Formats: sequence, C-alpha cells, structure tokens
Amino acid sequence: VGKPMFTKDRIYDETPPGVVMGLAWTAMGGSTLFVESVNHALTENKEARWEMSGHLGDVMKESGRIALTYAKRFLRGLDEKNDFFDKAQIHLHVPEGATPKDGPSAGCTMVSSLISLALNKPVKDRVAMTGEITLIGKVLPIGGVKEKTIAAKRAGIRHLILPDDNRRDFDELPANIKEGLLVHYASTYQDVYNVCFGDSTEKKEEEDK
Amino acid sequence: VGKPMFTKDRIYDETPPGVVMGLAWTAMGGSTLFVESVNHALTENKEARWEMSGHLGDVMKESGRIALTYAKRFLRGLDEKNDFFDKAQIHLHVPEGATPKDGPSAGCTMVSSLISLALNKPVKDRVAMTGEITLIGKVLPIGGVKEKTIAAKRAGIRHLILPDDNRRDFDELPANIKEGLLVHYASTYQDVYNVCFGDSTEKKEEEDK
Amino acid sequence: VGKPMFTKDRIYDETPPGVVMGLAWTAMGGSTLFVESVNHALTENKEARWEMSGHLGDVMKESGRIALTYAKRFLRGLDEKNDFFDKAQIHLHVPEGATPKDGPSAGCTMVSSLISLALNKPVKDRVAMTGEITLIGKVLPIGGVKEKTIAAKRAGIRHLILPDDNRRDFDELPANIKEGLLVHYASTYQDVYNVCFGDSTEKKEEEDK
Repeated sequence: VGKPMFTKDRIYDETPPGVVMGLAWTAMGGSTLFVESVNHALTENKEARWEMSGHLGDVMKESGRIALTYAKRFLRGLDEKNDFFDKAQIHLHVPEGATPKDGPSAGCTMVSSLISLALNKPVKDRVAMTGEITLIGKVLPIGGVKEKTIAAKRAGIRHLILPDDNRRDFDELPANIKEGLLVHYASTYQDVYNVCFGDSTEKKEEEDK
Repeated sequence: VGKPMFTKDRIYDETPPGVVMGLAWTAMGGSTLFVESVNHALTENKEARWEMSGHLGDVMKESGRIALTYAKRFLRGLDEKNDFFDKAQIHLHVPEGATPKDGPSAGCTMVSSLISLALNKPVKDRVAMTGEITLIGKVLPIGGVKEKTIAAKRAGIRHLILPDDNRRDFDELPANIKEGLLVHYASTYQDVYNVCFGDSTEKKEEEDK
Repeated sequence: VGKPMFTKDRIYDETPPGVVMGLAWTAMGGSTLFVESVNHALTENKEARWEMSGHLGDVMKESGRIALTYAKRFLRGLDEKNDFFDKAQIHLHVPEGATPKDGPSAGCTMVSSLISLALNKPVKDRVAMTGEITLIGKVLPIGGVKEKTIAAKRAGIRHLILPDDNRRDFDELPANIKEGLLVHYASTYQDVYNVCFGDSTEKKEEEDK
C-alpha cells in the first residue's frame, strides 16, 4: 500500500565532494537519503550565504543551521587558515524534492557534506551515516536503527556510522541483517570524520579479516 | 468535469532564448508547460536578483532555486569567464498565472531556460522535457510519463527528453503513442543540454532514418 | 506510556565554555536540558548576529533574547572593556532538536551559557539551574521543583540553583530526594553567577561538612 517515499536506493554511484549518503526512517520503512551541498559563489568578494531545499520541515532546517555552525568550528580546528565558510554561498539540497522530510537525524550527514565541500574531498566510498548533531559536536541517538540498517545494506553500503548511544539497538539486530556491514559508533563528530575522511575505515577492514 | 488546467498546448511557435517547453501532469491529463526566464537588469552594476511567478507551490519554488544554483555551476563548466549570473536580475515565470502548479518535475526545464538565457541561445526546435534535477545535476524520475508523452505529441514535439529511470515507463507505452517521437534519456543534466543545445538531436534524426 | 522526552540525562561529562545544564519540566517528569552557545564569527570585522535553534516555542525564544540583552549588561559590569557581544555571531541551541521546548524557566541557564562563552570559561562542575530571568536580572520562580530536583540528582548534580521564591517548594521535599544536593537560592543573576563562576560552591561545600 502506498508508494515508497524514496524511489531509488542510490542516485550516486560515486559521490563528488559535498555529497554524502544518509539514512532516513519513513512510514514505509528505511531508505537512503543524500545530502548535496554546493558553493555557488561566482566571484571572490561575495557575502557568505546559506540556503536549503528539499521540502524540509522546521526541525530539519534547524538541523541544517546547526550543521553549518558546527562545520565552521570543526573546519577551523582542522585548518585555522581555511576561510571557506567566510565567503561561500552554500546551497544544501536533499533530493527528492517532492518528498517531505523532517527530523534531526541527518545532522551528521549534513556536517559531513559541508566539511567534504569545504575540503573539496569526497567522503570515502560506501559510507552511510545517521545521527543528530549538537552545536558542540555531540552525536545524539536516533530512531529506526533496524530499518536504516536494512536500507544501508540494500544500497550496498560497507561502512555504517551510528550514534554511540544506539549501540544496543544495533547489537540486537539479527545476524543476517548485520552481515557484511562494518559498524562505526560515534559519540562526537570527530568519530564520524575519522570514518569519512581518515583511516578508520581501513582499520575496520583489517579487524574484519 | 472541471476545466482544463492548461488551455493551450502551444503558446509559442518558436521559442526565444530563455523559453523552454516542459510537460506537466495534471488531474485533467498531461499538458505542455512553458518556462520563461528574462534578465531585467537595466544597468551593469546591479546586484544579482531572483524572482519567480506563475502560482507556484513550495516544491516548485525550491525546484527553481535548485535550477538556478545548478545553472550557475553548469555555465561555469561551459565557459569560466561567463559572469552572466553574477549580475543578472532574473524573473522566471510559468504561464498561465491563474493555474496552480507544483512539484519538482520541471527542474530540467528550468535549468534549460536559464542556460538558454545565459547563452542567449534558443533551445532547439520541437524539444520538450520533464525531469527533476538535483543540486549536482542528477536527473531523477518523474510521474505521468504516458500523459506527458501524449501531450508532447499533441503539441507537435519531435524530441522528448525523459529521465533515464523512466525508460521502462516509456517502453511500455503503446506503439501508436510513441510513433513519431524521438526519445532521449537523461541521467545527468549534461544529457539534457546535449539535446537542447548540442548535436544529439541531429544524431537521433539520423538514427531514425 | 509514551517515550521519555529527553533520552539521556547527561550528554556532557564535562561542559566546555558556552554549555550549561538546565532543568526542564515535561509531561513525562523532570529532565536535564543543555543550553549550548557558540560564536561562529570567523573574522574580526563582522556584524554581531544572533540565532537560536532546538524546536523552541515563542516564549523560550523571547527568553533567549532577554538572556542576550541581560548578558551584555552583565558582562559590561564585570569588565567594561570586554566587547565580545559587539562582534560575536552567536548561535544558541538546545538539544534535542526534535523535542518541542517552551517556557521562560531556562532564562538563567541561557544567561550563564552566554556569560560562559563570553568569558571563555566553563561553568563549575556538576552545577544545574532553573529560573526565569527578567531584563534587569531578577530571578523569578518556576514550576516543577520536585521533578527538576529528581532529574538533577539522577544526573549526578551536586549544586542545584533555584529561584529564591521557590525556597519553600524545595524545603517541603522529602529528605531522600534532597540528600546529597547542595541548593543555592538566587534572587538576582549575580547569585547565579557566584555559584557558576565564583567561589560560592566552595563555601557551600565547607558549610556542608
């Protein structure tokens, strides 16, 4: 009954900088969800700007603002001289445009999208994530772990990032659902960053052998 | 019952730069839908501006913003020195003004309208298109392929651009509907561009002989 | 019945500057509530800015504005040369983003968060507070003293700051609830400040021995 809210599991085979795969929980079950960010400032001397689209509810819009504020801080921590956000005119979009979306659980995905854009560096291959972010970078637990995990697997994901406080939800899943997935738990955004851009994924692969 | 949502199939015989024919799916069946963009900056040193009209719903308005952001990127890819969008005061209108319109499926049409305006180059003759666009230029599938195809044919269209993921919907149509139409499938906007402004249309004509 | 509105008692073990623990009163009982403030101005010569998030109702948003106005005054009283609020682009967030929050009782918590940010000095360890603030710094009584006290204790709080006019509400609580908590009554924000940043906590510890 009804039609799936997201018609495709993967609209990207490889994600360019600024594009990150998240996971959504809908009335129809879990699904993947992409966050796309681009900088459309054409000339150097522009005022920074921010815009969101994708039929987003108020909580998700706030989540985007929190992601922006936090991404600025986090980037400064990585490289004090990187003034990307000072001049960027950022448009963040969540396809598909006709599907209403809400909730805070794409927070980590949005931060990763912005950091990927600022660094001009794609997120590692076959990584998907879910988790609310706070202004200071804490990762808070989310709902729908089972449905989201199934969606991640269906989309061919290898590395799944979950909030540390959802550890038990994942542990309790049947073995056949978890099979083939490497799970990474995050309590702060730094943990998410390590998987997306660092070498945590390689380490996990080693352990898995 | 009710009155047709779009009263004419063709309000343009030849489309000037900035005007592109899209296809809509309404309660009354399919219909054509034009997107018109103009630059109303009178002097050089103006701030860029953006305005939409046509009784558009929120999703379609967002779709217009996505089209603008993407068109900027795409134009830069075509010609790095073209600063059209830096100074343009663009008004994008979708006639007919009394008819409420919504949904993301005019995304490709709006990008084409903006690129046509920026290049000051009309879209090729007898081309119509439908497809959602993402911020990175992916073309996502739409609904109402049958109704839209019938409307395209009724309007004398020769080249029909559909999202690649709607391939099966078109294949399943009866032969008498498809007859006389050359269909082009697009997975990214580049595919749409090639038909509208490149030589893909000529190639198809050749193949069709 | 229902699920707890705040899933965790402590999302912070140690609070960095700008983060302060408040106490909320919900339909499900009391709970802790963090206020997070950051300054995301990247360069010196920026316009001061203010932004709030966390699914806040109108009364709580106003409470945030009052906190900002009062914190500016209070900081000037501490150090006339501190021009922090003159250039800061402040984002104040109250996790968790999906939980609607309202009411004026986080006023003191928000002022403390802003003062902590401006001084770049964390609030003392294991302090939680509740109380409405007026524009002149009066602390007004709040509801839910019992539920908030239980939540504070459950979260491992040592120093509980309550409005002076809630003195009787606390006195009437059973001894087993009050055990282990040092209560501080505030009639103006200066009293709150003394506990958070001054030496009032040490004095209380002494008295308690």
